Amino acid sequence: MNELNVLHDSQKSYFRNPFGAAECGEKIKLRVKIDTMKNIEQVFLSIVDHNGGKREISMYQIETDNESHVFETEINCPEIPGLLWYQFKLIIQGEVIYYCNNDEKLGGQGMLKWHEGHSFQITVYKAGVEVPSWFRRAVMYQIFPDRFYEGETGTKNQHVKKNSFFYGSWEDKPMYIREAETNRIQRWEFFGGDLQGIIEKLNYLEELGITSIYLNPVFESPSNHRYDIGNYKKIDPLLGDSNIFERFCKEAEKRGIHIILDGVFSHTGSDSLYFNKEGNYQSLGAYQSKDSPYASWYQFDHFPDQYKSWWGIDTMPDVEEMDPSYLDYIIRDEDSVIKHWMKLGVKGWRLDVADELPSAFIKVLKKVLKETDPQAVLIGEVWEDATNKISHGEKREFLFGEELDSVMNYPLREALLDFFLTRGDGVTLQARLMKLYENYPKPYFYSLMNIIGSHDVPRALTALAYGDHSSITDEKEVAVKRLKLLSLFQMTFPGIPCIYYGDEAGAEGGNDPDNRRTYPWGSENEEILAWYKKITRIRRDHEVFVEGDWYSPYGDRDVYTFVRQKDGERAFVLFNRSNAEAYDLHLNNLEQLGNGVFKNLLISDDILEVIEGKARVRLEPLEGKVFYIKR
Amino acid sequence: MNELNVLHDSQKSYFRNPFGAAECGEKIKLRVKIDTMKNIEQVFLSIVDHNGGKREISMYQIETDNESHVFETEINCPEIPGLLWYQFKLIIQGEVIYYCNNDEKLGGQGMLKWHEGHSFQITVYKAGVEVPSWFRRAVMYQIFPDRFYEGETGTKNQHVKKNSFFYGSWEDKPMYIREAETNRIQRWEFFGGDLQGIIEKLNYLEELGITSIYLNPVFESPSNHRYDIGNYKKIDPLLGDSNIFERFCKEAEKRGIHIILDGVFSHTGSDSLYFNKEGNYQSLGAYQSKDSPYASWYQFDHFPDQYKSWWGIDTMPDVEEMDPSYLDYIIRDEDSVIKHWMKLGVKGWRLDVADELPSAFIKVLKKVLKETDPQAVLIGEVWEDATNKISHGEKREFLFGEELDSVMNYPLREALLDFFLTRGDGVTLQARLMKLYENYPKPYFYSLMNIIGSHDVPRALTALAYGDHSSITDEKEVAVKRLKLLSLFQMTFPGIPCIYYGDEAGAEGGNDPDNRRTYPWGSENEEILAWYKKITRIRRDHEVFVEGDWYSPYGDRDVYTFVRQKDGERAFVLFNRSNAEAYDLHLNNLEQLGNGVFKNLLISDDILEVIEGKARVRLEPLEGKVFYIKR
Repeated sequence: MNELNVLHDSQKSYFRNPFGAAECGEKIKLRVKIDTMKNIEQVFLSIVDHNGGKREISMYQIETDNESHVFETEINCPEIPGLLWYQFKLIIQGEVIYYCNNDEKLGGQGMLKWHEGHSFQITVYKAGVEVPSWFRRAVMYQIFPDRFYEGETGTKNQHVKKNSFFYGSWEDKPMYIREAETNRIQRWEFFGGDLQGIIEKLNYLEELGITSIYLNPVFESPSNHRYDIGNYKKIDPLLGDSNIFERFCKEAEKRGIHIILDGVFSHTGSDSLYFNKEGNYQSLGAYQSKDSPYASWYQFDHFPDQYKSWWGIDTMPDVEEMDPSYLDYIIRDEDSVIKHWMKLGVKGWRLDVADELPSAFIKVLKKVLKETDPQAVLIGEVWEDATNKISHGEKREFLFGEELDSVMNYPLREALLDFFLTRGDGVTLQARLMKLYENYPKPYFYSLMNIIGSHDVPRALTALAYGDHSSITDEKEVAVKRLKLLSLFQMTFPGIPCIYYGDEAGAEGGNDPDNRRTYPWGSENEEILAWYKKITRIRRDHEVFVEGDWYSPYGDRDVYTFVRQKDGERAFVLFNRSNAEAYDLHLNNLEQLGNGVFKNLLISDDILEVIEGKARVRLEPLEGKVFYIKR
Repeated sequence: MNELNVLHDSQKSYFRNPFGAAECGEKIKLRVKIDTMKNIEQVFLSIVDHNGGKREISMYQIETDNESHVFETEINCPEIPGLLWYQFKLIIQGEVIYYCNNDEKLGGQGMLKWHEGHSFQITVYKAGVEVPSWFRRAVMYQIFPDRFYEGETGTKNQHVKKNSFFYGSWEDKPMYIREAETNRIQRWEFFGGDLQGIIEKLNYLEELGITSIYLNPVFESPSNHRYDIGNYKKIDPLLGDSNIFERFCKEAEKRGIHIILDGVFSHTGSDSLYFNKEGNYQSLGAYQSKDSPYASWYQFDHFPDQYKSWWGIDTMPDVEEMDPSYLDYIIRDEDSVIKHWMKLGVKGWRLDVADELPSAFIKVLKKVLKETDPQAVLIGEVWEDATNKISHGEKREFLFGEELDSVMNYPLREALLDFFLTRGDGVTLQARLMKLYENYPKPYFYSLMNIIGSHDVPRALTALAYGDHSSITDEKEVAVKRLKLLSLFQMTFPGIPCIYYGDEAGAEGGNDPDNRRTYPWGSENEEILAWYKKITRIRRDHEVFVEGDWYSPYGDRDVYTFVRQKDGERAFVLFNRSNAEAYDLHLNNLEQLGNGVFKNLLISDDILEVIEGKARVRLEPLEGKVFYIKR
């Protein structure tokens, strides 16, 4: 194909306009440019719709000179949300060639193929999508309840859990107690953190700048993670009770903090009111009898001992989410689980393993949720790009307008760790961020739950010291600097920053259960803590970080920059991830930023002067800067 | 040897007089009877003394008729305590034959051999041995402190132990938390029983008839058993402190209860003030430096990582007991460990692994103990017949008059379990009891610590239901009946009955750690508890069970009986261990018992009438009776 050059860049407005995801019914102009001396017989836009329907649209030539030919067509996005996939089919001197998305499916520039390749994606979403404003503005904080703080009137001593252990000291390292042969959990271990403890630390969280708390499960369960729920309508006695929970919501609300609960609806515990395998409940459980009122929730291969369960873990039997009695119990009843807790003050739900829930279930839940409280939010646990995730052989619908308000942004975490750990460079980072920006409907891109740490991945500081795989062994000092950069990125980037409890205090820990160590009360890393207080303040004091448009004017191997802009506000954020090199950047194309004297929000006497779109800025090793101007 | 019959019965006064163990310098007459038509050329008493010195004493003939010849000699026991061993060497018509102890070394009747065989034993002990009267009269109670009771002002919540676990509920089954690969203890687990808890239950123990408590170790240690002592002079903070301990001793004393501590002097913990392997103590430990003040206590093969330790368990480094600085610290200093705790009210010590302590160490300890308090007692952990135990290639000296006051009577436990579990019959039981009676100096036979359960063997009820090896699976009902018989035996037999905490409440449990379950407060087996209260009362109300002479007038397969007598008191105790058969016994040789109407101390209207040494008595299956008369 020496004599043939083809270009479509899905992220450039010349080639695709408007940018990114589109609302239902919206028109999109698509272009492809072909440089060749050969005879171009025909150019098709090849489109596959959400249901797999395929059509070819003949494109018409709009510009031409000797060698350069531009073809164009305009499509109408369907009225029903979903994905559109496109590539270009060219017939040139009798030969058929395709211009497709690149191998990494990142969007942007594609590549030529002799056969069909990966398509470019257009996410088509319901018009008028809006994510509640409080959530878009939120600074979140995730708490694993057993590990945050035990309140003065701790409930641990009531000895409510049989055959379980309590750690002797708050500072102990967590460990699982497993049977040697089977590796099964033999007994669960608890530190005894509780709701009263969180209440007592609400002032701390307020001071940290937190406006929303996401709690890992709090309902009665045998385990310390409580994803094996025993009773959806009861607070685990070790954590407190309904009254304490209600008081917790009220006290949080007083401080402008909204509560988000973890909704575990793909399975229950086997030791539950519903399944009752251990006979610990008074109910007639599905394990005990086919006449159980919960019988239809579960699927038995052979009653009662063989049943479908989450990843084959027999303490977590799968539920049939679309079973009417389950839907009623969880969502639709007057006192459904969802309504029950929202009445007590809950402002949102994070859906555990959202990618294992039927889309229909999520839609019903969302509908009832918004009827109950239009300001409530629904977040999903999805580990990949949530716009095109296929799981269990099914295309998943998460962010087309009638489902989630947000998802946990693990892809951002990965992209940022790769950059700051020098596994990828600034150019790669840009490509990965652009892919998210392109694929996610804009209202959702601005409301993604941007995490560094969670209960399922190594802690930020540990990941930044050793990478995810304990392969790099830098000094902790370096890790601390990286954490500052990464958290600064998180606080200035579109989407809701979420702090995993203790990360702001320099907590460390590798894989589960090490990432679930207790909050280090009394031995906080004061440097990191002060930093977090500063950067949450920067986010909250400057609307531009919440709502501002986003683009990246410059990136190279070690340096990455982006701009946020809204009305008269401009912020220019720069990062040097190098541990060794300082950079004197001569930036020459900052016209879009506008001229003026920008102030570094981190250091009072540091300024950036932009004159005629030009500016010079020095970045020390592992330095980040946030320049800001309000005109 | 058809034409030759020889007899010596070490337990019959015709053949050996006086019976059993002898005081230093005492004369003992020994006889052997030979029935033969052959020519008896010479008969020797072949004696080996404590140091292995051997001599042969020619015996002289005292009686003869056609076939029957009796030879006799008298020996003087040495002035130094120790063992004498004898057998008979006969030269008959030019042939040398030996009359030896039986193969089981039980004493009583022996057997002929063509070569030297097992000898009969004479235990020679220091004249004037006396065991404190309070101890001889005691009903003991063993408490494993972590598992008895947690007092109202429990110390558990002070979180004093790092990297340890607390059970979630008092009713949990104990388990060890081990590393899968190495099987090492990973972390220690605690229920949180404490000294304050025992104080709160002293009234309970008083009501149960207890007059002495033996406590498993209470000094600061990492483990729950506390045999890996960290500081000999500090109460483990989880259990309390010195003040609480002193109060405990005082409160016990008020109720007539004496406290006996566990003395662990064969090793310390590695995590200790002395060895300080983990660096948890402020001291300069022997592990840390050769300049440690404790360096001479330990033996290193290679400093610091290879050192002698108890059974190779590296958390328990062996000490050199005879090292002068160790002797000073434990025994001789003004504020030695022994004196330190005795000042606070301790009345005795139980020496852990006494058979691994040098006899010289025990003697020094005993001497200082008695100087400090002549009424204090010293008990040893010895699992076998303590009069002739050889361990680590050394003859051990425990009960010759200058060492222990008592040992834990595991041989009695075994003999009784075998009988009541029908593994042996009443005749075997008698032979095994007679061996103890013969070998132990009488003052010690009357002060043996008679145990059924301990922290090192399966609990009584479990052993009696399933045997020691879970092979028999009788009904629990049967086990309860057996437990009643066995405990009745314990309360009426010479020696100090010791109840392992909770056995009186029907606690169950197999091998360690199952035998260390918590006392079942609130779910006691009331039948068993009432029984225990009754039988401790019977023992305490009748001096004959403490001091009375003991002999067995009758035993057969399923039945075993014994008599206790002192001054005008007589008790006749009978047991039928059969689960199925009742027995109508016609007893015809009770002359020694004396005539009269005996009352069953267990059932008010049950009597036994002895007329001219004859009596009839019916024993139902699994029934025990205690007939008593005071003239």
